[in-house]
Amino acid sequence: MKLVHTVKQVRDFLDSKKNIGLVPTMGALHAGHERLMEMARREAAVRAVSIFVNPLQFGPNEDYSRYPRTLPQDLETCERNGVDLVFAPPVEEMYPLPQLISVEVGRLSEHLCGKFRPGHFRAVATVVIKLLNIVQPQRAYFGEKDIQQLTIIRRMVTDLSLNVTIVGVPIVREIDGLALSSRNKYLTAEERKFAPTLYRALQEAASRIRTGEKDASKVREAALSLFVNSPLIRVEYLEIVDPDELQPVATISGPVRIAGAIWVGATRLIDNVTA
Amino acid sequence: MKLVHTVKQVRDFLDSKKNIGLVPTMGALHAGHERLMEMARREAAVRAVSIFVNPLQFGPNEDYSRYPRTLPQDLETCERNGVDLVFAPPVEEMYPLPQLISVEVGRLSEHLCGKFRPGHFRAVATVVIKLLNIVQPQRAYFGEKDIQQLTIIRRMVTDLSLNVTIVGVPIVREIDGLALSSRNKYLTAEERKFAPTLYRALQEAASRIRTGEKDASKVREAALSLFVNSPLIRVEYLEIVDPDELQPVATISGPVRIAGAIWVGATRLIDNVTA
Repeated sequence: MKLVHTVKQVRDFLDSKKNIGLVPTMGALHAGHERLMEMARREAAVRAVSIFVNPLQFGPNEDYSRYPRTLPQDLETCERNGVDLVFAPPVEEMYPLPQLISVEVGRLSEHLCGKFRPGHFRAVATVVIKLLNIVQPQRAYFGEKDIQQLTIIRRMVTDLSLNVTIVGVPIVREIDGLALSSRNKYLTAEERKFAPTLYRALQEAASRIRTGEKDASKVREAALSLFVNSPLIRVEYLEIVDPDELQPVATISGPVRIAGAIWVGATRLIDNVTA
Repeated sequence: MKLVHTVKQVRDFLDSKKNIGLVPTMGALHAGHERLMEMARREAAVRAVSIFVNPLQFGPNEDYSRYPRTLPQDLETCERNGVDLVFAPPVEEMYPLPQLISVEVGRLSEHLCGKFRPGHFRAVATVVIKLLNIVQPQRAYFGEKDIQQLTIIRRMVTDLSLNVTIVGVPIVREIDGLALSSRNKYLTAEERKFAPTLYRALQEAASRIRTGEKDASKVREAALSLFVNSPLIRVEYLEIVDPDELQPVATISGPVRIAGAIWVGATRLIDNVTA
């Protein structure tokens, strides 16, 4: 496995190699990331992982500076999962000039996380297109936990005619249902106990839909009722949206995605399910 | 030479070919385009030309519907210039879905043409990144007449880490200085006589700068004085800008680009020079 830090090193290493799989990450790798690497190992002849905590996608009051950085352990995780190339660029390598050009994601960022993190998905789409252009993989792997990110990237591939297949990989959960996240490390023992409420609420919503409820506001209400005895939790949003453009639906008449974000103390967690 | 209309046909034709040169055009090819093809012929093993009148880059009151479409002659021009592949997609092939994701160009579009054509350069950057992603060339060729377009595309390549070399090709002019443009066809005989005034005004500005004038407003004034006896012409803009970010300069202290747009009757013409 090779560790490199510059775009040129990536291009030299991958030069004329075929069937490349890319797993873009912000590091602090956990079993969810390992699932992405497993998929890449199965499908791609050359496996690349990028590790880059992208400053542009963090808001001014978000956790950029305290986001966990665990490069030595991350490299072990990559090695163990058959990764060939790790690209861990410094910020100046990714943004040598002021970033004047960016990828605008339009109404795909109007709801869910995009509503609460202005500019976040523009920055995510921009850094992802950069990573795709640097590595030029045939396939790129993203977790379904960040469903808005995944949806935007899939649409970016279509709308900008990128020659890459995006592979969405199901959420990996703890035994009690909590979706794996690098941010779970922030939780105190007490907070950790309450964290799975989000998944239970999403499941409750999905179950109401499966048993015939069409009224999205009633489904939301049922889901939100699960938080009444969780004083440590503040719900940021819990929405039922169409899977293509992530617009809220009032009446459920086809497949939907139910997505939520909660604050548990100072930690923001997200999750989603289909129904 | 092969003519194709779909993305899949392009990718099948170019599959694993190396050293591809792309000349993106809107058709109505003239000697300026031929210069681009000549450059591609010299540098690239496989030469591709795209012909696509991109509806999204035309404003509601602009000339999309009357823009000249001359495919049979264009194909002859391509054939004569050693082109291997012509990609002439229908609109639905380029935009199968509503275009939600686009390339935002920020302050690079605040001045010059961008000021008068809102959304134009977003649409240009978006269609160019699509064409680059479809063809995946090593080099792409653009005329310097559309200097704002060329500057934006160069910056897009840097900011989005595209793996392509952008080649800017000098303006080709008529004997009286008029820059070649597909839109010159719109000019009446009378209008045609006045059209070279733009180039003469830009040359006047450049000459003032070369002889030591540092005050951009004085340079502009001198250039604009050339239009006083041209009743058929309305100057849309004539600006002196820095070559990297295309921001107007007040005091000239380094290389600049002098760019202008005029209306001659119902025809809009642009041109630029360095100084």
